[in-house]
Amino acid sequence: MDLKEIALIIGAELIGENFEVSGMNTLKDASKSELSFVSNSKYIKEIQDSNAGAIIVDKTTKDFVPDGCAALVVDGVYWQMATLSKYFAPNIEDETLALAKIGEGSKVSSKAELANGAIIGKNCIIMAHVYIGANSVIGDNTIIYPSVTVYRDCKIGANCIIHANATIGGDGFGFATNKMGEHKKIYQNGNVVIEDDVEIGSSTTIDRAAFATTLIKKGVHIDNLVQIGHNSIIGEYSIIVAQAGISGSTTMGRNVVMGGQSATAGHLTIAPFTTMAARSGVTKSIKESGLTFSGFPLMEHKLWLKLQAKIAKLMQ
Amino acid sequence: MDLKEIALIIGAELIGENFEVSGMNTLKDASKSELSFVSNSKYIKEIQDSNAGAIIVDKTTKDFVPDGCAALVVDGVYWQMATLSKYFAPNIEDETLALAKIGEGSKVSSKAELANGAIIGKNCIIMAHVYIGANSVIGDNTIIYPSVTVYRDCKIGANCIIHANATIGGDGFGFATNKMGEHKKIYQNGNVVIEDDVEIGSSTTIDRAAFATTLIKKGVHIDNLVQIGHNSIIGEYSIIVAQAGISGSTTMGRNVVMGGQSATAGHLTIAPFTTMAARSGVTKSIKESGLTFSGFPLMEHKLWLKLQAKIAKLMQ
Amino acid sequence: MDLKEIALIIGAELIGENFEVSGMNTLKDASKSELSFVSNSKYIKEIQDSNAGAIIVDKTTKDFVPDGCAALVVDGVYWQMATLSKYFAPNIEDETLALAKIGEGSKVSSKAELANGAIIGKNCIIMAHVYIGANSVIGDNTIIYPSVTVYRDCKIGANCIIHANATIGGDGFGFATNKMGEHKKIYQNGNVVIEDDVEIGSSTTIDRAAFATTLIKKGVHIDNLVQIGHNSIIGEYSIIVAQAGISGSTTMGRNVVMGGQSATAGHLTIAPFTTMAARSGVTKSIKESGLTFSGFPLMEHKLWLKLQAKIAKLMQ
Repeated sequence: MDLKEIALIIGAELIGENFEVSGMNTLKDASKSELSFVSNSKYIKEIQDSNAGAIIVDKTTKDFVPDGCAALVVDGVYWQMATLSKYFAPNIEDETLALAKIGEGSKVSSKAELANGAIIGKNCIIMAHVYIGANSVIGDNTIIYPSVTVYRDCKIGANCIIHANATIGGDGFGFATNKMGEHKKIYQNGNVVIEDDVEIGSSTTIDRAAFATTLIKKGVHIDNLVQIGHNSIIGEYSIIVAQAGISGSTTMGRNVVMGGQSATAGHLTIAPFTTMAARSGVTKSIKESGLTFSGFPLMEHKLWLKLQAKIAKLMQ
Repeated sequence: MDLKEIALIIGAELIGENFEVSGMNTLKDASKSELSFVSNSKYIKEIQDSNAGAIIVDKTTKDFVPDGCAALVVDGVYWQMATLSKYFAPNIEDETLALAKIGEGSKVSSKAELANGAIIGKNCIIMAHVYIGANSVIGDNTIIYPSVTVYRDCKIGANCIIHANATIGGDGFGFATNKMGEHKKIYQNGNVVIEDDVEIGSSTTIDRAAFATTLIKKGVHIDNLVQIGHNSIIGEYSIIVAQAGISGSTTMGRNVVMGGQSATAGHLTIAPFTTMAARSGVTKSIKESGLTFSGFPLMEHKLWLKLQAKIAKLMQ
Repeated sequence: MDLKEIALIIGAELIGENFEVSGMNTLKDASKSELSFVSNSKYIKEIQDSNAGAIIVDKTTKDFVPDGCAALVVDGVYWQMATLSKYFAPNIEDETLALAKIGEGSKVSSKAELANGAIIGKNCIIMAHVYIGANSVIGDNTIIYPSVTVYRDCKIGANCIIHANATIGGDGFGFATNKMGEHKKIYQNGNVVIEDDVEIGSSTTIDRAAFATTLIKKGVHIDNLVQIGHNSIIGEYSIIVAQAGISGSTTMGRNVVMGGQSATAGHLTIAPFTTMAARSGVTKSIKESGLTFSGFPLMEHKLWLKLQAKIAKLMQ
């Protein structure tokens, strides 16, 4: 699809040279052949630094598009980006891809489904009712229990264990909303990458990125019924206890511990070696390493204990 | 089954004419051929207004049964209703129904299971390990990802996306308890209806109604690991973020937003355009539209912020 | 595997007689042919009372090993126990076991998978995409909805209903951590036992025990998306509402009620007939029967109501 076709689809004014667009991406990550977008004038600095070949803008941001970068001028950038995201979404399955490959020593149940393009490493166990999507890659010695679904284009490392009914690479929760209150899905065209030695619990859901990658680093252990939002990064050897929820675009350092039913808001950074007690609710980034927190709103655990003592007194 | 047989099963005294009973229903919705029940004398007004052909009552409520309506008099109405609910439960599958129908252009995986009586619309994608129950209907262009289970008698609209491992139409959580503390299941003989343009996240569970319908209206987006209780109604274009829980018989207006890990108690009404922040716990109905709430117990978000400031002061 | 081989694997000094080890177990439950371990000097009394044939100890605990019991002396007992747990883990499936047996009158979907060694009782319904693991036993009249996974060696009673996408017997969340912050999985070699007349909701996860059994007693009703940790015991006729989380090694008496999104910390005892309101967070054992609690930290419900009144006043 070239820029002229895209301009037609979203009713945009095209300023600049036409070219064939290879995909969509964020301002920060887009390359010369890619299209990006800016939905908020607070990202003006990022526009100017972007390597995108073209940017969807509105009247308030169009003047900041750098030289050599095309502009697609619309009303409602986010809504139009959502419109286009569907055009860049690959088919769920693709029969033109090669048949799935299975490495030496692996056991794949006849009741599992490997989409074309899937690649299973050596000595894996892929159990009944598992689904591995197109172009997804499973590392050596990995065990995938029944009814796990891995959507397309994901990567799971070596020596991983994925427990029953987990979902890896489902769509992140993204949509644009118009003035009528209607929503339009933003197709999630990124993926999930899980590094080596990771264990993931039953019915845990790890969403694929909108663009780029949701990343679970080496040696992480995730319990059951945990939600990990799109574009999050979980640091090496982190521990996420059951029913915790991590919103989108949260980046954690190594050896972070999240207690049961704890949660983070989106777009936060959590310092390495942070511990969040059960039920913690994290709404701001944590910059200092090695501290322990509790409560919602979050506070240092020792303060939380003090607060509970005060509350107890209040009740006498 | 006629009233005499029913009276025998539950040891009831039958007052009134015998007739063939077509099903059970609530006092409000029961028709002339249906049986209803009243387990609490506070529903006396509803007894008098009911069109039910017969009502299960106890000694304290039997005198309020209207003329022309039969009464089945028992001790322990709720327990006996539970007993009968099993008799009115359809078989899980029914081989006498026609083979499933698949609309033009739809792709159904050979590893999916369509029960007899299921109907798939046009241009759908039904992936591996999906189960579609008897008489369930899937609208055109709908995508159902792997390992989704749709129980019998449900209806999913057009242009919907149901993500992996979601469960649509599982039994609502209902039972009666006797004086020994034992429970008896109330069979959930209603269904789930999902209107057009709805997206439902991975491992989300939407329970079928005890009677009638659990309803997800047009354009709703539901994230992963959300619980929606039986007989709830979610208004158009509402947004339910991951791990939220909606108890039974909650009715929401349009464009309600529920943050992550938020929850509502049962039998509430939530006004349109209400926003509940993450972790909100709603225990009373919300009547005014367009407000934002936080906390548990719930309060307006601006009050909640004030409360947090007071608590911070308390700790100095 | 005998003690000498084990000593080699974990680099232990062996004090005592060599013997063939049949398995690993806790100090309390280990028999003469089993190996146990003590990772904390506060368990010295349990060492002395243990019937284990051998115990993994470190320098601080080795002198407490009773006569006639061998000692394996290491640095980092817990880490080495984790190392060994893998050696005692049975294969996920075992083709040398007899083909699965199906009792009279049972209907097993051709799209279900029964591992060798599985045993299905009479008049069961085992639906599509169900997996029943090796040596797992399903009692008479039990219904298992689609995409349920039962791991190996579990036992489900008669007249049970397991809803779609539930996972029974997945690994408990256990690992050892070394000084580098790396984790090593503790293989969960126990099982799950579910007694008769139990109903389990969709996408609920019940973890197998590390050793011994996670036990759900007769007549329990569990809603959707509930997490039950390894080695927990849920008393007869208890009710666990959606999205509740029960940490490992919690023991509940009969007729306990846990509200939606409530949770318990690990290693607690909850008295019979205790009610915990929605969102309760239980961090200490509850010894008196029949009380109702709320809040986090937990308090008696009537106190919690008083606290809310005080907080309301604070805000005026």
